[in-house]
Order: sequence, then C-alpha cells, then structure tokens
Amino acid sequence: MKKPSIPKGTRDFSPEEVAKRSYIMNTIKSCFTSYGYQPIETPSFEKSETLLGKYGEEGDRLIFKILNSGEKVKKADLRALEEGNLARFSNSLAEKALRYDLTVPFARYVVQHQNDITFPFKRYQIQPVWRADRPQHGRFQEFFQCDADVVGSKSLWQEVELVQLYDAVFSNLRLDGVTIKLNNRKILSGIAEVIGAEDKLIDFTVALDKLDKVGEEGVKKEMLEKGISETALTKLQPLFSFFGSASEKLAQLKKLLTTSEIGLEGVSDLEFIVASVETLGLQTAALEIDVTLARGLNYYTGAIFEVAAPSEVKMGSIGGGGRYDDLTGIFGMKDISGVGISFGLDRIALVLEELDLFPETVSENTKVLFINFGEAESLYAMKAITKLRRANIPSELYPDAAKMGKQMGYADKRNIPFAVLAGDNEMASETYTLKNMKSGEQQEVSFDVLVAKLK
Amino acid sequence: MKKPSIPKGTRDFSPEEVAKRSYIMNTIKSCFTSYGYQPIETPSFEKSETLLGKYGEEGDRLIFKILNSGEKVKKADLRALEEGNLARFSNSLAEKALRYDLTVPFARYVVQHQNDITFPFKRYQIQPVWRADRPQHGRFQEFFQCDADVVGSKSLWQEVELVQLYDAVFSNLRLDGVTIKLNNRKILSGIAEVIGAEDKLIDFTVALDKLDKVGEEGVKKEMLEKGISETALTKLQPLFSFFGSASEKLAQLKKLLTTSEIGLEGVSDLEFIVASVETLGLQTAALEIDVTLARGLNYYTGAIFEVAAPSEVKMGSIGGGGRYDDLTGIFGMKDISGVGISFGLDRIALVLEELDLFPETVSENTKVLFINFGEAESLYAMKAITKLRRANIPSELYPDAAKMGKQMGYADKRNIPFAVLAGDNEMASETYTLKNMKSGEQQEVSFDVLVAKLK
Repeated sequence: MKKPSIPKGTRDFSPEEVAKRSYIMNTIKSCFTSYGYQPIETPSFEKSETLLGKYGEEGDRLIFKILNSGEKVKKADLRALEEGNLARFSNSLAEKALRYDLTVPFARYVVQHQNDITFPFKRYQIQPVWRADRPQHGRFQEFFQCDADVVGSKSLWQEVELVQLYDAVFSNLRLDGVTIKLNNRKILSGIAEVIGAEDKLIDFTVALDKLDKVGEEGVKKEMLEKGISETALTKLQPLFSFFGSASEKLAQLKKLLTTSEIGLEGVSDLEFIVASVETLGLQTAALEIDVTLARGLNYYTGAIFEVAAPSEVKMGSIGGGGRYDDLTGIFGMKDISGVGISFGLDRIALVLEELDLFPETVSENTKVLFINFGEAESLYAMKAITKLRRANIPSELYPDAAKMGKQMGYADKRNIPFAVLAGDNEMASETYTLKNMKSGEQQEVSFDVLVAKLK
Repeated sequence: MKKPSIPKGTRDFSPEEVAKRSYIMNTIKSCFTSYGYQPIETPSFEKSETLLGKYGEEGDRLIFKILNSGEKVKKADLRALEEGNLARFSNSLAEKALRYDLTVPFARYVVQHQNDITFPFKRYQIQPVWRADRPQHGRFQEFFQCDADVVGSKSLWQEVELVQLYDAVFSNLRLDGVTIKLNNRKILSGIAEVIGAEDKLIDFTVALDKLDKVGEEGVKKEMLEKGISETALTKLQPLFSFFGSASEKLAQLKKLLTTSEIGLEGVSDLEFIVASVETLGLQTAALEIDVTLARGLNYYTGAIFEVAAPSEVKMGSIGGGGRYDDLTGIFGMKDISGVGISFGLDRIALVLEELDLFPETVSENTKVLFINFGEAESLYAMKAITKLRRANIPSELYPDAAKMGKQMGYADKRNIPFAVLAGDNEMASETYTLKNMKSGEQQEVSFDVLVAKLK
C-alpha cells in the first residue's frame, strides 16, 4: 500500500512548527489588542458571486471553487465545455468558492453587518486563504493571512498608528532592524502629472517599481518603450538621485511636485505621518520614504506601506498595506475609507528561523515525565501528576511499564527536561526522585519541593 | 444593489463571538498542554482518495469536493453524467476535497510521518471541518472540531487520563455538573453473546441506545422486530433495572456476563478505569456507567465516552470519544491502537451562554479611549497612548476631532470602561482627566497614576 500524502502546495504542521507559528500569531494578536483592534472571523467559503470579478482575470482563475453537491451538478453547462469556455463551465458547477484573501470577505462583512458595527471599526483577522497557484518553493495553495484594518475614518492618525504597530510587532518578536517603507499614491499621481504622463500612471509606476532590480538605465529604457517622452524623463531625473532622511526626501519631493496639487497633498500627508512618528519614536524599526513603492496601485488611494526584513536576510517584503478610499464600493456601500496592513506570516517565520530568533522555550511542552514501574507505582505517580496538572505544570506518565531505556528515550525525543522515578522506596517515604535530563543529576524530594523545582 | 450575504450553513463571527470562542478554545488548549498533548495542523483539503470511502456512503455524499482548476475540468466524465452516476461524474471533476473530520487526516498524518513521530504520540487538533449537510438550526456546513488522541499504547491509564481531562476542562470552564458516561464495546459484544444475538450486535446496540427516548417497552419492541428472540430479551432483563454507582453497576454486569470472556474483559477494563478515577478524584464532573452508550460502534473497540451537559440544560452530548484498535489500518499501518476524545465547541458555547458562565471580562478589549480635541491635543494623547500600549494596556485615540457626544458614544458602544480628556489645562500641567464611563466619576491624574488606575 502506498504511503498516503497531501496535495502539492499544502502542508502538515508538526507540534514544533505549530508552536513556532503560534508564537508569531500570539505576539501579533497581543499587539493588535493593545492597539484596539478586535478579531472577526468569516467563513472559509463565500458565495462565488462575492469573490468572482474582484481580483482581475488572473485572480479569478486562481480561486478554488467548490463543486456543487448532489443533484446540483446536473446543472453543468455542457455547451460551455464544448465551446472550450472552461470558466463558464466551471462556474456552472460551483456556487461557492474558497476565500482568496481576507480583504474582500472583510468588505462583504462590513456591508452585510453595517447596522451592527460601531465605526470607526478596527478589526483584525488571522485566517487561512487558498489560491490555485502553481506550487513552488515558498508558495503554497493554503496559507494564513493576517490583516489589521480600520474603516470609517480618514484620519491620518491611523497611518501613524499602523507604522507604530509594525514597529511594536517586530520589536516584540525581537526582529530588530526592519525598514518600514512609506509612499503615497497621490505622490505617484503627482509625479505622473508633473512629467505629463498622467495617462500612463500604471506603466510609469510599474517601471519605477523595478528601480532596485534593473537600475536607473533599465527603468528609463522601459519608460521610453512604454511611450514616456525624453522630456518627461529629464523632469524625472531628481528621483534617481533621491536620498537622505525621510524629512529630506519629502523636501525634495515638494520641490519636484510644486505644480501638482495632488502631489503636494501626498507630500503633506507623508509629512504629518513622518513628523508624528518621529515625535512618538519607534522602538527598533526604521521609517523610510520610498517613491518607487507601488504595490496594488489600483487599490490604494493614499499611503502605501511595505516592510523589508533586516538587510542581512534575503527575503521579499514581510508586510504591506495602505489606504483605500472605496473598500466597500464593490458591494454598494460608498464612501467608506479604510487603511490597513498585513503581516506575511510564512516569511516572518522563515526570517526568525534564519536569524535564530525563536525563544528557546517556544516548543517546550511537557515539563516532567513520570517513569512507569508498574501498576502500584503508576497510581502513586498519577496522584502526583493529577496535582501537578492542576497547578498548570505539564506532566505525563509513560503509559506502559516499558524498559527504562525506552521510557528515557521518549523523554529525550520529546525534549522533556525532567523525569521522576518513584518505586517502593519513594512510595514508602512519600518522596520522588527527580532527574534532570540534561545534567543527569538526581535528587530525592518531597512533593512540595518537586512542585517548586518544576514551576 | 442587494446586500451581500454568506452561504447557508456558514457563519460570520463578530468580535464578541470570537472572544467567547477563543475563551473556550484557550481553556481547552491549556488543559491539553498540562496533560502533555501537542498540537498539529493538517491542510484544509486532502487528496480525494484520502477521504473518500472512509465515512460510508452517506458520509461520502457530504464531503465537499474542490473543483479541479484550469484545463483539468476537461476530464469531466460526461458518460457518468448521462448515466446519472453523479458520484462518478463529481469525482472526475475533483481531485481534492475539504476535510470532513479530524480523525482521518490524523490517521493519514501518523502513517505519512511515522518515522518522525515519537510514540506514544499524544496530539491535539483544533481546526474547522466541512460537511455538505442540509443547514438547519444548530447544524453548520463549517464548524470547528477539537480532538485529543493518543496513539501507540494500549495502556488503560490513557482512558483514566481522558476522563480526568474532561473533568479538568469543564471545571476550568466553571461548567459544574457534567456527567461523563462510560461504556465499553467489549461489554456490548459480551451482552450480545450472552443473549445469543452475536450476529445482531449492531441492531441490538442501535435499539438499546434508544432506551432513554423510547423506554423499556420501545426497546424490546424494536429488538423483537429485528429478530432478537423472547428468550434473549428475558436474559437482558437485568439491564432494564440497572442502577447504582459505577462500581455497583459493574458488579451487576459481572454477574450478567459471567459466561462471556470478552464481556468480562470489558468489565475488568472499566473496573480499572473507575477505581483509578475514584482514587484520583474528579473536580466537578460525575462518572457514570451507561451500557446503552454505543456512538460510532463500528469504529470503537474498547472504552466509549460521552459527556452530557448539566441536567438543567437541554442539550445533546457536548463531547465523546473512545478506544479504536485500528485507526491507521485504512492507510496500511497495522496494529496502532489509539484512544481519543473530542469536545463539541458550538454546543459548549451554547451551554455557557445559557448558564451565563462566560466571565464578564471575556469580551473586554480596549481599556481607555482618549478623546480627540484636535491636532496638538491628539499628539499629547498619542504620547501617552504609545507608552500605555507598550505597557500592554489596550488604548485608543478617537481618530477624528468629532463632537464629544459621538466620541463618548463610541466608547459606550465598544464597552470601553475609561475615557481620558486632555485639553490645554492638562497639557500645561502634564496631567490627564480620567473618566470612569460607568460611574461618570472624573479625576485629574499624573501619567503614573493613570497607568496604575488602568492596570
């Protein structure tokens, strides 16, 4: 019989992996709570109509659809299959689909429950999402997203707070040296306006986004190919020698964007955020202006965030987000502005692993194993174990009176730091022989001392 | 535009609902950890072949299948559709399926990772499962299961420990008065043997299971209909006047089963469990022998558990489990005995709600709202908030300088117990006016006193 296996692109998580992931999630949750964000959860699958058409054509293809149950498969649109219209054929077979991200379900939630929600609504959500992407190294068909958003206020204090929140999470994870990059859609629009390429905003930002990959010449080449003029490129020149602190960069941008109202608005937004963050202080993160930062440009209307891992680790962004002015418009609820950030859990786990930043205690579980010497001894052990457990000291009895070596081997493999040996002598004197599994040291102690040693 | 909605049988969870569910899950997790159980997680979907054929014909129908992506839908078996063989047609369209329970994925996990696992393997798993059941009151298509199992040991100490674990969880949830019912498959086999109805074991137990619903006469009527003889029923008579403590019931069973080897083995197993639990003591639960308890009989081979909510609540079982001798056999790994229990999270939540047992603090989140009086005041507030958050005191600034009533209304609706008002006076004297939202009491305090009051 062939060993069973799981679908490509999915993962089993062992106890140690769950412990590490929980450590990250609990750290994030605890920061979210300090900042006043509240958890919600939405169903794993939504009606297909809720998801389809929200992520572009490529996105639609990557949505996992759930086959209708029972008689409903009879509705299969066979003509669509004959015509080779696989999307229509698929849609005729599936009324539900697995969540592709947390943003669209959140928008749906806000609209559906608008009468029960107190705005501004600060919510967080940590749940799995599914994408029918071709599985490859580090890309999975099932992975967790972790989002914090606030909807119903245009206040820039939210942006300030989200920068602080990133700093708080990474500081608490002891991941020092992350860089929080900041941009603003209005600045990108302003630049496009100033150089006379307003109609080419997307082409322009896509090219600019590649600056650190292809360099100045590469970016210019692509812009020319896309029909952006030489004159425009000359006006753009200051961006290529853009440097200094966040405030210095903003001063340079102000000069460049002097004729663009929207551009200046973007600069002013960022000035407020940068000045506030500087006054309030960050613990370990750096804040940087990055005008090449675009991310889902169609989506964001104001601030854009991205977090880069410390430079000694080669890793893409470990977080990102921004302000969007019309999250819920897709479901008919207009003028609800929102701003949010997300954390890349899998990548954060990889970074902590690489830098050896998981606390040693993260996968510690059972504290003490009682060796099983037979029925009477086990009952004696179980009396102690029952009390230890009620005192929240994780304890186990080896379930069978197996050979000593086997029982000790179990303690070793499970990383259990202490063993208790209690036979006739200990039972007679109501004591326990406590063995330190690392040092090998042994000591005969009373129950009270046992508790104290294990606490 | 129509308000969006979610599929029937699924649920959104509001912040308060998430808080309550987390309270239950965290209590359970903490007990699991004390008892040495470790968490694993498996993917939401498995290969169809892993799940199909494991839950009987009805179960197979209730498995949600995931439609193949892209070109693969071309493999649709149209002949099966023509022939009306909807199961075959569906299977031709779906290589993956959503998890139907946590047991089969756990068995798959144990077999797949057998070389990395230290046996006995004590694992717990709290994850959603999906069933294409017709949605109705209290029955959902997506719900969480919560299982603890240990595989790789036949020791009855595991059964003892699982009874204690149930007691620990419900005691920690302050749900006093649950009854842990205990039976053993071997006793059911023994009774069937003694009354000469071995070949009718299933019919016999199905009928017996209905005792508390249809009474003695109803059970006898059904047994006669199923071909169990009058003579057999006479032999069965003692079961209908079965009463007393667990030990007394076991004494009666021993007499009844005196000619059945397997039956006596079952009695002896239960004697060990009952005696050990009595010696070790339970905190708030009662342990009861219930020979009518069958649950998934095809599945269990030894002890069978079920937990009934306190009698003042009308609710089915809130937990159940048992010993199975061949969990992993379905995947070709023989002779791995296991025993496990599960908790019915949704029902436990309903019971706690009905008995008003959720701690008052369960949905407490933000502790203090700083009123927004404008830009300078906000910055002053944010300086304090930044420090409070680092001290783990959940704090918020109302993001906009809205009218006082609106800001206070936000604090009320969010159940935020304190507000801080800080304007020119407070800024000049470096103080904060702290308002108790319940009593209305106000007090001007220094930052240190503020922290002390909010801690």
